[in-house]
Amino acid sequence: MSAHTQSLEALIDALSRLPGVGRKSATRMAFYLLRQPAETAHALGAAIVAARDTIRYCEVCQNLCESSPCERCRGRVREESLLCVVESPQDLVAIESTQEFHGRFHVLHGVISPLDGVTPADLKIHELIVRLSGGAFGEVILAMNPSIEGEATASYLTKLIAPLGVKVSRIASGLPMGAQLEFADKATLGRSLIDRRTLA
Amino acid sequence: MSAHTQSLEALIDALSRLPGVGRKSATRMAFYLLRQPAETAHALGAAIVAARDTIRYCEVCQNLCESSPCERCRGRVREESLLCVVESPQDLVAIESTQEFHGRFHVLHGVISPLDGVTPADLKIHELIVRLSGGAFGEVILAMNPSIEGEATASYLTKLIAPLGVKVSRIASGLPMGAQLEFADKATLGRSLIDRRTLA
Repeated sequence: MSAHTQSLEALIDALSRLPGVGRKSATRMAFYLLRQPAETAHALGAAIVAARDTIRYCEVCQNLCESSPCERCRGRVREESLLCVVESPQDLVAIESTQEFHGRFHVLHGVISPLDGVTPADLKIHELIVRLSGGAFGEVILAMNPSIEGEATASYLTKLIAPLGVKVSRIASGLPMGAQLEFADKATLGRSLIDRRTLA
Repeated sequence: MSAHTQSLEALIDALSRLPGVGRKSATRMAFYLLRQPAETAHALGAAIVAARDTIRYCEVCQNLCESSPCERCRGRVREESLLCVVESPQDLVAIESTQEFHGRFHVLHGVISPLDGVTPADLKIHELIVRLSGGAFGEVILAMNPSIEGEATASYLTKLIAPLGVKVSRIASGLPMGAQLEFADKATLGRSLIDRRTLA
């Protein structure tokens, strides 16, 4: 006899495939769902299916959307000639929330990472180049994370974009605002010295 | 404009209601589900609904089951007159996996905890007393956790069961097997002294 009933085992199995969820958390979640009113479980089940079925890539910026082109691409922005390239939809939201960027976005959905089997063909790079070839953009800001893969992807993209006559820039790396030098890691402090700004 | 699309927000909302899942993990799970083949998301959605709809309480032991009485209650056991009372289905599985218990089970679905608003009426105590009144059991092992609420529930049950002429016992507390005295907490070490076994 298995430890739990068949449908409970199936639920624990399915939940434990979620990222960051082991068998113990999955079991806890499953028992939680069984204790809730049926509507709670039905709502979660329906939300999963609905999201998976309605969400697609925007044909312009490649961000996730429910109808393509997405709301952002249909709307107007203050700096139409500025394009910000990000790794993921979450990064796009992070940049938007700073209210310091007023241009267009392009989502790569990853970075080049040979160790994880991610090649340029797996990313929305072709779509980016096609978009830039249209001549509508004067500058591209590469806003990939300052990780090894992010830097590698940025130099790869720079080589592709430069011939199109579009200015390419990279978000600044350095000490986070409010940081203390004595506790900063060497790589960050080093970068903040190399990329020092001239004040006068 | 909200950060994510409507169905994505709905999914993140629903996932973040799971225990131990905050908004950040829920967002990560949602994006994971969107990256998977549609079948993965559909399977999880269906598993949640199926589990919630098929699982009920066994009319005998009150454990979760798909058809009542459950498989365990329909089967035979070596010690028919021994009943083990546990807090939760997970605890039942834990005890069964020791292979040291060969009697029947009864699941309370919680412990008395006034601070959490759990009273005896919220637990399967009435069902336990009815079951014991049948006269089929010679001994009840109270296997609630050795927590304050578990101990309180055990003494409450003892007072209810003793008049029925059924022997009541409690699982032993003390040092876990393989533990080292110098690192044991005081409460556990104290309990292991109070409950010392006579060897000779």
